[in-house]
This record gives sequence, C-alpha cells and structure tokens, in this order.
Amino acid sequence: MKVYFDNAATTAMDDRVIEAMLPFMKSHFGNPSSVHSHGREVRSAIEKSRKKVAELLNASPSEIFFTSGGTEADNTALVCGIESHGITHAITSPIEHHAVLHTLEVLAKKGAVRLHLLEVNEKGEINLDHLKSLLKENPKSLVSLMHANNEIGNLNDLDRIGTLAKEYDAFFHSDTVQTIGHFIHDLKNLHVDSLVAGGHKFHGPKGSGFLFVRKGKKIHPLIHGGAQERNMRGGTENVIGIIGIAKALELAYEDMAGHRTHIEKIKTHFIKKLTDDIPGVSFNGLSEDLEKSLYTVLNVSLPPSDSNRGMLLFNLDLEGISASGGSACSSGATVGSHVLRALDHNPERDSVRFSFSRFNTIEEVDYTVGKLKELYAVEA
Amino acid sequence: MKVYFDNAATTAMDDRVIEAMLPFMKSHFGNPSSVHSHGREVRSAIEKSRKKVAELLNASPSEIFFTSGGTEADNTALVCGIESHGITHAITSPIEHHAVLHTLEVLAKKGAVRLHLLEVNEKGEINLDHLKSLLKENPKSLVSLMHANNEIGNLNDLDRIGTLAKEYDAFFHSDTVQTIGHFIHDLKNLHVDSLVAGGHKFHGPKGSGFLFVRKGKKIHPLIHGGAQERNMRGGTENVIGIIGIAKALELAYEDMAGHRTHIEKIKTHFIKKLTDDIPGVSFNGLSEDLEKSLYTVLNVSLPPSDSNRGMLLFNLDLEGISASGGSACSSGATVGSHVLRALDHNPERDSVRFSFSRFNTIEEVDYTVGKLKELYAVEA
Repeated sequence: MKVYFDNAATTAMDDRVIEAMLPFMKSHFGNPSSVHSHGREVRSAIEKSRKKVAELLNASPSEIFFTSGGTEADNTALVCGIESHGITHAITSPIEHHAVLHTLEVLAKKGAVRLHLLEVNEKGEINLDHLKSLLKENPKSLVSLMHANNEIGNLNDLDRIGTLAKEYDAFFHSDTVQTIGHFIHDLKNLHVDSLVAGGHKFHGPKGSGFLFVRKGKKIHPLIHGGAQERNMRGGTENVIGIIGIAKALELAYEDMAGHRTHIEKIKTHFIKKLTDDIPGVSFNGLSEDLEKSLYTVLNVSLPPSDSNRGMLLFNLDLEGISASGGSACSSGATVGSHVLRALDHNPERDSVRFSFSRFNTIEEVDYTVGKLKELYAVEA
Repeated sequence: MKVYFDNAATTAMDDRVIEAMLPFMKSHFGNPSSVHSHGREVRSAIEKSRKKVAELLNASPSEIFFTSGGTEADNTALVCGIESHGITHAITSPIEHHAVLHTLEVLAKKGAVRLHLLEVNEKGEINLDHLKSLLKENPKSLVSLMHANNEIGNLNDLDRIGTLAKEYDAFFHSDTVQTIGHFIHDLKNLHVDSLVAGGHKFHGPKGSGFLFVRKGKKIHPLIHGGAQERNMRGGTENVIGIIGIAKALELAYEDMAGHRTHIEKIKTHFIKKLTDDIPGVSFNGLSEDLEKSLYTVLNVSLPPSDSNRGMLLFNLDLEGISASGGSACSSGATVGSHVLRALDHNPERDSVRFSFSRFNTIEEVDYTVGKLKELYAVEA
C-alpha cells in the first residue's frame, strides 16, 4: 500500500485543474501582454482567474497579484512592505515558516529593521500580551504572523491579531499558505494588510501563488521589469500556474465543508488509533485539538525507541508511507525542525507530521497505525 | 489565415515538452524537498534536468539555478550580484530589456550604485570604447549587456565585452533571454559571470527560467525561505516548469542548425519581399543584417501613412497576423518603445517587429507581405 500523508508539503493535483491548464499549454500560448488576438485570449483568461480568486476571498481583483508561489509572495510583502511604508521595526515569532523568518532576519542583519520575536509556550501558543506591549512601544511596526503553523498545525487568531495591529497602526502580514483553500477568508472584514497563497497546497500546481495587498497599503515590486501585474511584478506571467491556482481555489470552495468533514474524520480516527495502539504517544503543539489546529495536520510525538531513533521517517517510507519530520522546505537540512526546537521538544522522542487531503482514506490511517505499532512493538 | 509572428514575445510549446511535463502533473506530484519516495522521484527528475541544462551549455550543474523566468533571474543576478560583491558602480545600455534597466535604475535611485548608460548609435550599436573608458575609470564595476536585443535583434559581441570586463575585474552579467535555445553558449570559455534564460522563448513553458552563476562568483538569494536550489532560491520548485525548460532546451539543441536554416530562409524571404513590394520600407537596428542580428527577429520601419499611423498592429491583427510594436513586456504601455526612442527613430514611421520560430512558413510571409502591400497601397 502506498500512503501519502504529506499534504502540508504538497498535494496531488486535481484532474479538473489539469484539464483547465491544458488548453494553455496546447493552443492558447500567446503572451498575455501582447495586444494581438493570441495575447488577448490569454490576458482575458488571466483576468478571469484574478476575478475568481478575488470573489472567493471577498477582495477586489486589484488587490490580487499572482506570484511564483507563497515564498515569493511572503518576500514581496515583507521586503517591499517595510521599504514602501518606511517601517523600521518588525515583529514575528520563532515558529514562522523560513520564508518569513529568514527574510526578516536578513532585513534585520542589513539594518533595515529592528526585529523582535514573540514569546511562544511549549504548545506553540504565541504570547499576544507580548505582541501588545511590543506594539505599544513600537507603533507603526510590521507584524508577520502566520494563520496556521505548517508543522504543528496551531491556528492563530487573525481577527484578534489584526485588531491589535490596527490599534497600533501596524502593517499586518500573514503567511496563510496552509489555510487558503482550506478555510474561508473574508478579506473585506479581516484586518490583514497582506496575505499569501501557494497553489500546490490545495491541489493546484507548484510554482503558482498569489499575494493579496489591501487597497491603500500599496507596496512596490520585488521583481522589476515589464509592467505585468499592474507594475507589481515584472516577468511574463506563468499562465498555466495562474489558471491552475484559480481553478484549484474554485474547487476548494465548491465543497470546503465536505472536504473538512471528510478530513476531520480521518484526523479524529488517527488520534484515537494512535492513542489506543501506541503507549506513550503524544501530540506536538495543539495539533490534537480540532478547534485550535489545522484539520489537515497531526504532529505526533512518539516514545523514545532505539530502533526508530532518527530512522522513523525512513522506516515508514520502507512501508510505503510518505510523511514528514517538519517543513519540506528544510527537510534536506540535518538541523531538525526549528519549530519543535522552539517548543523545547524532547529530542529523545521522534516526531512525525502526518498531513491530510480529501484524497486520503480511513484505510490508510489503519494501515499506517498498524505499521507504527509494529515498528514500536519491536522495542517492547 | 492565422499567422503568429511574435515569437520573441513567446513561443508555442512543443508537444514533446508538454508530454515530458504531464507525468509531473498527473502522478509524480511529490515535493522535491521531501525525503520520502514521493519526493525523491521528483528530486531526481529536477537534478536530471539541471544536469541536462548544464551539459548543453558546457557549465557545471552547481552553476545552474532554476527561477520563475528570465526577469527574476536578471533581478537576482543584478540585485544580489551587486550586494554580494560589494559593487558600487554599474554600466548598462539604454536599450536593455526593462528587467535589467528598471532593476538597475531602482538600485541607482536607492543609492546602491552609480549607474552609467553606454552610448548607442542610430543602428543600436553600443560604443565599446565608451565601455572601456568607463571600466578604466571604475574598476570592479558590474556590466550588464544583453546578448541580443529583443526588439531590434542586434547581437552584442559577448566575447569581446567579457574579455574587457575581465581585464578590469568587472562582474559581467548578460541577459541572454533571446539567444538561449537559439545559439550555442559555451560557458566554460565565455567570460560571462552570470546569464539567464526564459523557457517560453524556445517552446518551453511560461514561468520557467534559469540563472547561471559562475563558480567562484557566488551571490546570495533574492527570495529567502527554504533551502531549495542549494540555498539560492527559497520556495517549492515549479517542477513542471523545470522539466519543461530542460526538455525544451534539449529539443532546441537537437537540431539548432536545422531550425536556424529554416528560420533564416523565412527572414531572408521576408526582407526581399518587403523591399520589393513596399516602397520606402527600411529596417530598424541591424535586423536586416543576418550576421549581426538574431535570425529570429526582423524589425521593420514602414513609410509614413495616414491610414496606418498608430493603427498598423491593429490592422494586421484584423487580418489574423500577430506581430508586435516592441517588447510584449511593455506593450500595454502607451509610451512606445524605449529602444526605438534611443535610436532616434522617426516617429512618423510605424515600426513592427516580426519574430519567427521553426513553426513558421514561407506561405505565412507571403500572406503577411500581401496584406501589408494592401494596407500601404491605400495611401498611393
């Protein structure tokens, strides 16, 4: 049995997304910036995609900019948000994705901003009193806090953070890569100035993404060149990526409640099976809490085991099970997860992130927990 | 008849490129940074693509970094090349693509570099004596000069410029977007420190590109995040883009001489027909000269005509002919071509860039010149 439980790293493309992209590979190949008929048909498709994305998020099409993915969009919001708005102080947390953390660290190292990291407890909960006191001392800061943590699944309260940011006149950016396509975002009513998406997290193509920047909070481009994306991003558009991400978002919204119900059943069953079958199992962050974490992520902490220590992902892989130790973006590195380190996770215990999509099944959970049981039974 | 003569803006994808990409849309969907089997099969395909690109350009795989296109690659080379090498003076020309020109102008405006633009004559030829004297006065500069101009087709002598740059210890970047896939580049023997490609200029996908950075000239990333591209570009890889650009380059090299012969026939025939049939026609830049210009580009200057003035591209479009007034990247703008302005082109004359690919035919040339003849006969 082959089981794919690494959907927070990337998802399988939906066949209907592929179908939507194909005409733009095979026949509609014009450059959307060209004024002739070959160009116009593609321009029209891109603008329809922008309109669709904007509608679904309750935003205006002029607030949506297509990018090469979530990371480029995060970099654009942070680097250019800080520069364009004359910001000299930034606040983030130690458990943000590297797309945010490294970008802000580089800006701090260059002297472009002073950077404060928020206190985080052992469950990965951010200290919002700390945020408030930092904002009080440093009005007009940039605040960058993700909607949901990609490793432990913890959900942040964007409403509350956004309201705080607004109170102290801060620019609020949120890395929403793990929640766009899985949760409803109502951007007319949420106090966020910018947020981002990556299409491949919700069954769209890799290399596609978008940046939302609120009207009135205009920032300058990260990538200079032609006048594409209304002068916000130079470079010929990744047409199939744009068509793909818009179609994927449309499909995600078509039955988000149904997908959620399906995946929550999987997650609930997974928690119960693990608790029943693996003595000493626990869950990192808030991922066990269905209310306070992504329904798509379960981060499992396994009891110390000599035969699995440092080999757990490898052992699962041998059984056909794809899961992750943390963010795929840093899984090549041997330094381990910066998120689990920030939580003072016991290094004697192996952790594995299982992450789900609407394509997963209960049978896959049973198979996986069965294999885990075997792997950990050896020890007993 | 539908005629596509705007191949310098973008090209139709080769069916074999689409075929190569499809498995990575349909089944091989893993994140290349994931260590499990779903990830490894994709990682392996990406590294094979990198090796293929490197082999074709006589470079090392560790010198090739995949990007979202030529513009991002240009921005990375310029912004990060200048920063990483402590460069304070840059030299370029007024007829570079906006991906280079705007990026350097922004850096100059920020005070990161002093910027000199080289003298260019009415044929678009760059004054290399001017380059030499600027390099003498400002050693350790950055020089950014394109291989071929995207509008008028003029080829620069990269060998000569590279040798000059080396003599004065300058960092030499070249925007080679119009020549990769159409000319041989031997990077072990060319004194260029960085160059770029965009896959959609040679029948690959839009949104794909790469940056070559010579070993020993290491620069830091433009987009921060995960450890992708050996820490040179954060963000999940555009897998289908990478597979596509490598396949497109492979196909381009398989019969480059054959494609060139075919396209040169088309260009030669086009020049002859125009000269025979349209009194007063001339050619912008060096595009009439087969030795000194891109074989893929012919930039035509038409005699003053009240009925076509400012309407020529529209009139051609009505006849099913897609061509361009200049760069597609700025064709939405009403300011006209910065390249033709730099050449003191007579604004009474309409200019049109016809650009070719191996998919064009002699019949399309005859049809197009026939239509031009009709459009300009009205006047007589």
